[in-house]
Order: sequence, then C-alpha cells, then structure tokens
Amino acid sequence: MTDASPATTPNARRSGGRDGRRALRATPMASFPTLVRDIPVYNLVPDEAVELIHDESLKILEEVGCEFRDDEAIAMWKAAGANVTGTRVRIDRALLMSLVAKAPEEFTLNARNPGRTVRIGGRNSVFVPMYGAPYVRDLDNVRRYGSLEDLNNFHKLAYMLPALHSSSSICVEPMEIPVPKRHLHIIHSALTHSDKPFMGIVTSKERAEDVMKMSGIVFGEDYVKDNTVVVSITNCNSPLVWDATMLDAMKVYAAHNQPVICAPFALCGASTPASAVGAVAQVNAEALAGVAFTQLIRAGSPVIYGQFMVAVDMKSGAPMGGTPEAAQMMYLMGQLARKYRLPWRTSGFHVGSKLNDAQAGYESNMLMHAAILSGANYIWHVAGWLEAGLCCDYSKFVTDAEQLVGWYKYAGGVSFADFKDAMAAIREVGPQGHFLGTQHTLEHFEKAFFSPSIMDFNSFEQWSAEGAKDHATRGRDKARQMLQAYEPPKMDEGIAEGLKDFIAKREEVLPDTVN
Amino acid sequence: MTDASPATTPNARRSGGRDGRRALRATPMASFPTLVRDIPVYNLVPDEAVELIHDESLKILEEVGCEFRDDEAIAMWKAAGANVTGTRVRIDRALLMSLVAKAPEEFTLNARNPGRTVRIGGRNSVFVPMYGAPYVRDLDNVRRYGSLEDLNNFHKLAYMLPALHSSSSICVEPMEIPVPKRHLHIIHSALTHSDKPFMGIVTSKERAEDVMKMSGIVFGEDYVKDNTVVVSITNCNSPLVWDATMLDAMKVYAAHNQPVICAPFALCGASTPASAVGAVAQVNAEALAGVAFTQLIRAGSPVIYGQFMVAVDMKSGAPMGGTPEAAQMMYLMGQLARKYRLPWRTSGFHVGSKLNDAQAGYESNMLMHAAILSGANYIWHVAGWLEAGLCCDYSKFVTDAEQLVGWYKYAGGVSFADFKDAMAAIREVGPQGHFLGTQHTLEHFEKAFFSPSIMDFNSFEQWSAEGAKDHATRGRDKARQMLQAYEPPKMDEGIAEGLKDFIAKREEVLPDTVN
Repeated sequence: MTDASPATTPNARRSGGRDGRRALRATPMASFPTLVRDIPVYNLVPDEAVELIHDESLKILEEVGCEFRDDEAIAMWKAAGANVTGTRVRIDRALLMSLVAKAPEEFTLNARNPGRTVRIGGRNSVFVPMYGAPYVRDLDNVRRYGSLEDLNNFHKLAYMLPALHSSSSICVEPMEIPVPKRHLHIIHSALTHSDKPFMGIVTSKERAEDVMKMSGIVFGEDYVKDNTVVVSITNCNSPLVWDATMLDAMKVYAAHNQPVICAPFALCGASTPASAVGAVAQVNAEALAGVAFTQLIRAGSPVIYGQFMVAVDMKSGAPMGGTPEAAQMMYLMGQLARKYRLPWRTSGFHVGSKLNDAQAGYESNMLMHAAILSGANYIWHVAGWLEAGLCCDYSKFVTDAEQLVGWYKYAGGVSFADFKDAMAAIREVGPQGHFLGTQHTLEHFEKAFFSPSIMDFNSFEQWSAEGAKDHATRGRDKARQMLQAYEPPKMDEGIAEGLKDFIAKREEVLPDTVN
Repeated sequence: MTDASPATTPNARRSGGRDGRRALRATPMASFPTLVRDIPVYNLVPDEAVELIHDESLKILEEVGCEFRDDEAIAMWKAAGANVTGTRVRIDRALLMSLVAKAPEEFTLNARNPGRTVRIGGRNSVFVPMYGAPYVRDLDNVRRYGSLEDLNNFHKLAYMLPALHSSSSICVEPMEIPVPKRHLHIIHSALTHSDKPFMGIVTSKERAEDVMKMSGIVFGEDYVKDNTVVVSITNCNSPLVWDATMLDAMKVYAAHNQPVICAPFALCGASTPASAVGAVAQVNAEALAGVAFTQLIRAGSPVIYGQFMVAVDMKSGAPMGGTPEAAQMMYLMGQLARKYRLPWRTSGFHVGSKLNDAQAGYESNMLMHAAILSGANYIWHVAGWLEAGLCCDYSKFVTDAEQLVGWYKYAGGVSFADFKDAMAAIREVGPQGHFLGTQHTLEHFEKAFFSPSIMDFNSFEQWSAEGAKDHATRGRDKARQMLQAYEPPKMDEGIAEGLKDFIAKREEVLPDTVN
C-alpha cells in the first residue's frame, strides 16, 4: 500500500524554461516515468525450491559446461581459471558467483531526452515494445512484409504512447533495405522518431560498433564510453551454446558499459526438457554463464539476466504464448533473479495468436500478470506482438499500450490516502443513497479508477450506434489517429546531419547482399 | 510446489461397477474434481491494512447500521440483541463476529451425480458459468433475446465442459416463458441437462420454495433438509440495504442448510465511494451483515461471503469489467475472507466487452488471475459473460471453459516430481542437442504443458489454410460441435416424471403475468 495515490505517478517529467516549453509543444502526450512497483512480488515456490533449482543449474555448468564458440572468449575464460576443453567451458560455482556478483543490481538507462531516462532493476519496471517481426498487420488489417515506413510508424507510436518506456529498435524489419545496410536505418529510425531509450543490433560485431558510433553522434562520443544508453539482446542457443555472433555483440556493448540481456529463447520441450522446473534450471545456467562472461569483459558493467520461455505446441511445433506454464516459469525466474540481485527481463504480451482477437487478449494478460507480480524489470514485447513474434500489428501496438496504463495503476498498489474521507462519505450517504454527487467522488474518481478509451464499456446500443467495432478495429482507428497527430521530438540539426552523413559513408562501403 | 504432477489431477472421478460404466457412456467428456489450489495466495496488503479495513467495516455496522427491510428479520435481530430502530439494524462487533464465527469454513456441495460433488472453501476452488443474461449471442453470432432452447444448450455445454463444476441456473433468461412460471423451467433445465451442482432462484420466497421442492424430487425430500445441494445469490442493495426479497430467499435456503452467497453487486463510485479500499470496507460490512443473518436463521448453516465489485465508467455510467482496481479489490476481499475463515465468492471472466474479442480476452484474464491468486472458492461468471452480464455468448462460453483448463494447471503449481529426470535429460542431450526425442520428453510433455485446442498456435500458413478464423469463430464452431455430440446424463424415469408433474401442477396455479 502507499499513502500517495498511484494515479498521480504517471505524469510527464518536464524540464523547465524555454526548452521545456518547446519540448512540451513537440510532445503531445505525457510520458510516464519508470514504473516503481509498490506491491509485493509473488513467490510461487518456497526458498528451498529456489535453492534446489540454483544448485542444479550450477551443477550443469560445472559438469556439462557451456559452449563458448569464440577464440577470444575461450582465452578469457582460461585466463579467469575456468576448466576449458576446446570450446567447452566448465565453470565452478565460486568463479561463476564471484563474476555474477560484480554486476550492478540497478542502473540508469539514459534517453536522449533526459526526461525519458529510466531505471532498470530493483522495484523498477519498464515497458518495451516488440522486436524482430518480418511481417506487419497494417492499418488496413492486411498482413504483409514490413517496410521502413512501418518501422518509422511504430517508433512514432512508441514515442507517443505514454506507458512505453522505449522505442525498442526492430519492431518490424524494413524488408526492402538490404540486410548489410538495414541496421543503420533501424537505429536511425529509433533515434530520430522518438527520444525514448532504444535497443541495439547484435547480428555482427561491425553492426554493434555502428550502433555505438551512431549513439556517440547523438549522446557524445565520450559519453557513450561509460554511460548506458542502449540495451541489446543476446540469445543463448539452447541448450548451452553461446555462439560467436552473440559473444561479439557482448564484447562490443559491455566494453562500452552498455547492457546486454542474457536470455535464451527457450522452446520448452524442444530446446529444454519437458518440465517447467527443468527448463528453468537449464535457462538459469545459460543466462548466468552469459552474465558472468559480461563481467569478464568489463567488471561492473550493467547486464540484464533474463528469459524467454514458451512451450512448443506438439501439434505444430510452433511456440505457444500465454499458457499457464509460461507464467509459472516467469515466477521462478523472478525468484532466481532476486536471489542473484540482478535486473531481469521477461516478456509481457507475447502471444501465439494470428490476430488481435480474444486469444491474443487471454494470452496477453496471462503473461503480463505474471511479469508484474514476478517483479520483472525489463518487460519486453509489450506492444504489437502477434504470431509468436513474426508479426507486428498496428492495432495490438496501441491496444497493448492502453493496457499498460492499467498495469501502472495495478502495480502502484491501492491507496489508503483518502480512506478516512471515503468512510466519511459512507456515513454521509447512508443506506440506499448513491455516491455520484458526493464531494469525495468528484474529487477522487479519476484518480481512483483506470479509465481507458479504446476499451469500450458503453451500452450495446451506444456501441452499435458507434459502428459496432471490435477491439482490434478500435485499435487500428486509434493508431491511424495518432499517426496523423504525430510531431517529431526535436533533434539538434548538427546531430541529425551527423547521423545522415555516417549512414551515407557506411553505405558506401557496405555490400547490398550478404556473402 | 507439489511432488505429484498437477496435470494428473484433473481426471474423472468415476464410480465403479455397472453404474460406473453406464455413467461413463453417458459422459462423453471427463469432468474435473474440485480444484485444490497448490500455490500460495497473494496478499496485496499487509495484515495491518486488513485489520484497518475490518475495523472501519465494523464501525459502519455499529454506527450507521444496515437496513433489513423485513419484519421477520427485524424481529430476529431484536431477539439477538442488536440495536434496532425501525428497519435500521446496528450490530456491535461482538454480536457480529460471534455470528460470523458460526458459519463453516468449508462445506460439501452435493451434485445429483456424486462424482460431480465438490467442496467449497479452504484451498478448494470451483468454476461456475454465468447467470442472469437477458440476451444471447448465438451460434450465428446474432445477438437476440434468450430462449429456453438457449438455456438448455448452455446447460448441455456446462455438463460437457470438464473444467466447469456447476451448471449455474439462469445462464440466460428464457424470455418466452412468463416470469411467474420461468423459475420452474430454469431449474428443470439445469437439473435435467446436467448432473453437476446448480444454482437457485431468489426472486421470491415462493420461488425459492419451489426450488427446494424440485431439489427434493431429485435428491429426496429428507435429504435436502440438511444436505447442501444448491447455491443461491443474494445481493445487498448497496449501500447497506438488505431488502425483503433477498431476506426471504435467505430464510428459505438457510433453513434447509443451503448456502446463499452474500455479495453486494457494487458499482464502485456509484453505490460505494470512489476508492478501492473504501469500497471494500463498505462491501465487507454489507457481506458480513448478510452472513451474520444467515446464522440467525440456522446456526452453522453454510454461507458464502462474497463480492462483485466493478468501477462504473464515468463516460457511460456502465460497469467496467477487467480493470486493475477490480483485481486489487479481489485481493483485499480474499485477505478479509481468510481472516474470517469464510468460503468466498468472486467472479472470473466478467467483462464489459460486447464481443468475444481482444478486449474480452484482456479483461477475462486480468480478473481470473486475481481470482485464483486471491484464493477465491466459488469463482462465478467464468463462462459466457459479455456486456457486463447482459449477454451470454456461445463462443465465449466454450473459449472461457478452455482457459479454465489452463487455470487448473496454473493453480496446481509446478511439479518437482521429475526434476532429477529432467536434469538427467540435459546431461544426455548436452549443448546444441534437442530434447524432442528424449525419453523424458516423450513421457512428460503432455503432463508438463497445457495443450488447448480452440487456441491456435499453428503457423500463419496453416491457420490460413484452415480458414483464417478468429478465436470467437473457433469458439462458435466448437460450441456447435459439442451440442451435436451431446448425450444427456441419465435420470431415473420416476424422478423425471416427478419434476414434470410438479411443474404442471404449479403452472396451473401460477399466473401468466406479474401483478
């Protein structure tokens, strides 16, 4: 509980003076600060069970070990005293835990607009849109390949939607741009259409370095050597393989004090055992091995422990989304993350549905509930995700973001601040009265209750008169309206030119096709 | 955690011998026993906060009091020593709590098929379909008034859907039947199309007595004097009025040892203060006053403490559904119910959406998550509910019921039974292998992971080939298939005739219109 109303928290942080007024004109919607959860976490299993999983994870790393398929990484592990055979690294628990302990419990993720800077770890949670879809479901409800225009649109929406704390980066792949040049345009789109934190590229060392150079142009070259400005995702290849591409990305980012998320993309039953607890023990081993490696690169650099765990559908082989086991595994990972005092990532609204329909809704809130109650810090894929991540939907992007406003209220806890006044209102009204006109209701209703606009609570008759639209249609309408109202955040012209010049120069040397 | 797989729990309880085989032939789908939750409850606020709410509720009953608008009830309160002025009853905390303490913490709710009998209270949860809709959204997706044929269909579906523990009663109103005679056909439909527990009628003393007489025909006249066979809903008129109709129903049912749910239908901000905590304090006072009254009628008779709390939408005045505050208020009521050691009721999938769409999905799982984690015992309105209860949807009836199978898995907790085997599988597979062919996966996958059939996790291509149906359409398809496959549970011919005779005799004396 809290003695301040949670509804007062999500307000814009505005800088003052002329810059502040300019920023306000360019910012049609308020942006919420980091969500500071004010409710208890939910521990699904007792501490002894967490210790049991922890112990089995460590035994796996000691006895089976983990592959690190990169010469430099192998040399670093040897130097650190791990038991190395070829690319197989067996890490004893003392070494592992001493490295994990070097990672900070919390850190600041700086945005180019300081008012959008957030905290990662502890009681803080941030909401980050989806990443990595080749397809979009567009404003006409047509599913097709994504384009740069779509990507720009999602960054515009991420900028405008107040409960999103990041613009992610590859919400959707701009498929018309050749792969070797694509990362430049993705990062440019995120940095220019929004002023919120963003995410990096991990598909090669060179591309990761390009991300850092572009970040340097925006934030200052020296600034990004030590100050955290970009979060990137490195996936372990389950079971138990960290490959050269991921390790290269880790080396670039951790050296700059930029966090990577160490999270296997686990298809439980296929890349892990068919056991929720067994899968968690394996994923924990994989994530800890990654976290430890980042601390070999730069001790004390921020890193995000994490998971993406879904069961495979045995009928189709496809990943399932909002199933009960996905929620249960989140709770377990949250308990482990707290044991290790690590910031941790999970996913919120990642679903298997092909449409923004009832299945998508069931799945979304099954997972988000667990993400919030398990105390996740970096809650990813919370806008747009359909088809197990293959499609980013304009409608779901904005309907998800409205749900997030509700999750702010939820995680803010219940307010006892006006409890005595509320009880006085009951005495004033007495039996068989109503509260609609009381002073307490007039003063408190808006703060007391979530009041969404895409969700529809009208009567059937009113809803019919307004076109009898389903939620997905209302979401598309809202996305279209928002894009029409979009105004870009300001960016210094020199910086804007610098980014363009950098991209032009890189494009001169980069090929149009992957060899 | 548990050392038995939760997936093994939801199996049919079958009686043996010839009767058992006959029952099996007439029961095409398995039915799950009472859900025994094996996960911790979630306490949103500390115990001190619960005490604070409790204290304020008791002050309301002591200082403001509650209206009991029935002469007999007033006489009973006077005899019990309450402070009575007209119809206003002020109940001091010693009297109130001594009455509340008489109510049992758990009880058995008997079904006419003993294999469908369930437990209410403690760690037990049961899932009960919706109640009270005038409209249906039918198998052709047309919204229209409900009919007896619709009601029969919902009772058939409730009978066949394994995770539903009750057939409710008025899933939808059979609008073509005159109101004075309608209750006879509602109860007849529930008792004949299903053999699960059912719900009573509370709209008059005479109708409640008819329910008990029909129950007597089915269960035996003597049996229903003491054995619990029917649950009924009595709503307090918030704020703080128990009216004569509800009190009459309480008197009939409690005298027969049949539980009523004492639950205000609270529109927070309209019939309670605009404060989640304030609303809970008021609703708690109202519910406790009702519970206490049932113990004046028959000390030790079962009763269900409860709530239905939604905020009103200030734009339309309509009740909202799956909002964060509805979930928060559930957690608080759960904490209070545990303090009082009372079985308690909440609602699961009650939504404001007009369609079984993404909004309905978001809302449904927002609420069900809270219902399960708050340890609710009688989880009502978990199949079919749309439009704040005005419409029962065939599609949502079956899609909700599939979700409930997932909630069984969720509430069953995670299994550590095969943890060592899972870890052995990791050693066997090693880095870069896969688990699809391991003995562990083959043996455990089905038990380990929820595997729904209406939810679709196929590839986009496969889903398109199968008609690109949204979840609501798949739900309607499933409902249609199920109804075609329905076979009624057996009923002794003498009992069936007895029910028909009773209805015919009552119809002779009941008018066709309400005076």
